[in-house]
Amino acid sequence: MFAECLNNVRAKSPLVHNITNYVTVNDVANILLACGGSPIMADAPEEAADITSICNGLNINIGTLNERTVRAMHLAGKKAADLGHPIVLDPVGAGASRYRTETAAGLVDALPLAAIRGNVSELKALALGSTATKGVDAAAADAVTEDNLEEMVCFTKEYARSAQCIVAITGAIDLVADEKICYVIRNGRAEMGRITGTGCQLSGLLTAYLAANPKAPLAAAAAAVCLMGLAGQIGWEHRQPGDGNAAYRSRIIDAVYHMTASRLEEGADYEIR
Amino acid sequence: MFAECLNNVRAKSPLVHNITNYVTVNDVANILLACGGSPIMADAPEEAADITSICNGLNINIGTLNERTVRAMHLAGKKAADLGHPIVLDPVGAGASRYRTETAAGLVDALPLAAIRGNVSELKALALGSTATKGVDAAAADAVTEDNLEEMVCFTKEYARSAQCIVAITGAIDLVADEKICYVIRNGRAEMGRITGTGCQLSGLLTAYLAANPKAPLAAAAAAVCLMGLAGQIGWEHRQPGDGNAAYRSRIIDAVYHMTASRLEEGADYEIR
Amino acid sequence: MFAECLNNVRAKSPLVHNITNYVTVNDVANILLACGGSPIMADAPEEAADITSICNGLNINIGTLNERTVRAMHLAGKKAADLGHPIVLDPVGAGASRYRTETAAGLVDALPLAAIRGNVSELKALALGSTATKGVDAAAADAVTEDNLEEMVCFTKEYARSAQCIVAITGAIDLVADEKICYVIRNGRAEMGRITGTGCQLSGLLTAYLAANPKAPLAAAAAAVCLMGLAGQIGWEHRQPGDGNAAYRSRIIDAVYHMTASRLEEGADYEIR
Repeated sequence: MFAECLNNVRAKSPLVHNITNYVTVNDVANILLACGGSPIMADAPEEAADITSICNGLNINIGTLNERTVRAMHLAGKKAADLGHPIVLDPVGAGASRYRTETAAGLVDALPLAAIRGNVSELKALALGSTATKGVDAAAADAVTEDNLEEMVCFTKEYARSAQCIVAITGAIDLVADEKICYVIRNGRAEMGRITGTGCQLSGLLTAYLAANPKAPLAAAAAAVCLMGLAGQIGWEHRQPGDGNAAYRSRIIDAVYHMTASRLEEGADYEIR
Repeated sequence: MFAECLNNVRAKSPLVHNITNYVTVNDVANILLACGGSPIMADAPEEAADITSICNGLNINIGTLNERTVRAMHLAGKKAADLGHPIVLDPVGAGASRYRTETAAGLVDALPLAAIRGNVSELKALALGSTATKGVDAAAADAVTEDNLEEMVCFTKEYARSAQCIVAITGAIDLVADEKICYVIRNGRAEMGRITGTGCQLSGLLTAYLAANPKAPLAAAAAAVCLMGLAGQIGWEHRQPGDGNAAYRSRIIDAVYHMTASRLEEGADYEIR
Repeated sequence: MFAECLNNVRAKSPLVHNITNYVTVNDVANILLACGGSPIMADAPEEAADITSICNGLNINIGTLNERTVRAMHLAGKKAADLGHPIVLDPVGAGASRYRTETAAGLVDALPLAAIRGNVSELKALALGSTATKGVDAAAADAVTEDNLEEMVCFTKEYARSAQCIVAITGAIDLVADEKICYVIRNGRAEMGRITGTGCQLSGLLTAYLAANPKAPLAAAAAAVCLMGLAGQIGWEHRQPGDGNAAYRSRIIDAVYHMTASRLEEGADYEIR
């Protein structure tokens, strides 16, 4: 199944409209090219709907939101909704400021999202109104662990039900769920958290996978999450003496570039609950 | 001739004012430093003219245009025109939205450009009003090939005549022309298209080459295009196991950093038509 | 002492609010993660004060300032001042345009800065109103050399006295001073100047070091400057055939990632005047 998802992305080369932050935008563009998709970044209200119209999916990331780009997010989102394109929301830093929390909540309310992807603190801020974030990183107290796994699986499904979309909570253990099924994914490495933007990159990948796999969105979302984590494992294997987070960042994108369907199938480490 | 162009850039270290997109801006800055130039990025209308005044050339790239930056492009452009500085336009995504097409056309009309550099879909959108782009990448149907080469050489010269500037159309085959002479360049590798921003980087290089070689603008433009393609070939030769588009991106900039005049002369692969 | 400074950063993992330019922002985020800190970038006036409130320090960099972000700088700065957080100003390109010089001067006047870090031309523009910059790089005539060292030490202390904060002037020789004591630092390599944003990265590091070492700000500032230079030396030792400025950029961040307290103590090359 994941093999088919990957092959569809390579075959269809989905064009993804990204309204995303300026911190990690270059890596998002390069990982979309690496996976076989094609990126376009455009955040002016004047063209937001036009750009979405020529694309196959929309990736909204509030990492460095401002008044202008939030307007563009809504305009592009409305057009994507009209056209039936999958819309992914990455609520970066929800809980860290009222502006972020309210903007993210407003997008969840206004748009028929295909998926929301964030860390556990961001998702809790959205679902529960809690604000225990550490900026754009998850608070340690929020982590998904083997101990609270069953509870977190329920939380993820429940929020997927109420938000009416796929919910992907990523961290040491990743959870990808709709209201009925939850993929519990154990790919990835802790060192990925020392690179800025691996979450943003995953949201880009997720959009491409949803756009190219309209008939199996949950499997496509899980495939994208496994792909990112597996790329983190493969990138780590390729490390050279002296490599730190900067070199590792490139190696992960490069591992996505070389990923094959069979390697993804073999390397995906998940259970379904 | 190309050797002289490269040596002039290294000797004069032209300061280039870039009003460019936030996706690839870091790579544009680093490739300008790599070639021997010096970059400054500034897009506030409050300072656009002041910054241009201390520079030697202006690189305008509409990749993530917005109302504010478009105003800055016009203000900087007017000042650069007054000072006789070369102005390069990179009409990223022209044809992909009305806002981009009209903004690019407005800049062509308002400013005495030294050069326009884009992919073939963008140039067709500007010259013919066609809109067959694939976002910021060229549509496959538009590609310059050995079959349509003569026709595309004519198109490039013709548009150079009507726009009254050098036109550089880059892709598998690159065309760099004024109204009379067209360089047909076969440097580069297809894999460069899997990296975000190689076009943006080339527009930065082009501006530095024009700024440092005022007496031979067409040769300088062709030298910059050959340099970028040759750097793509050299970077490819340096690839290591596991390298993908992220590693390749850095290797190209590094090849520009180490380029010598003699290597550029020997490696430049072009004919004149 | 420097060992303790480094250990404090690793132990406390200070969260740094960055209002910084879009050219080098990704490298600033990655070097903050590399040193053991945690970055958040946010430049909307709507959330500037909220974001600062959850952070431990504020890094203001005017590299691509505009009306909106300058407002955010003042709002965040006021809140950081109320909370007693260290505020670092990087006056990128002060002297290159009236807007930059006046904005930087306005921030110096309005905010109780902990430190100002820039190249010598930027600092002279702030302190003396001179405008001999080469864009965002220092003018050659301004360089700190062995010949004018005593004079520049006095200048740095004097400006620290009048600005009432630590002043860090970085270049071939780095000077880090309060009104009484000046660290003269000889770490680093000239090739670091061929990478965009090593100064911006240092300003991020400096903020993390000040935030984690409130009792010894001058030593913390000197430690951050030595760290950056030493990372430049270590990154250079790790260079591979073909490496240019792009590869070197990553190697420096990676050297910060692997820096140990003892290596910093041993490698720091400074005298106190």
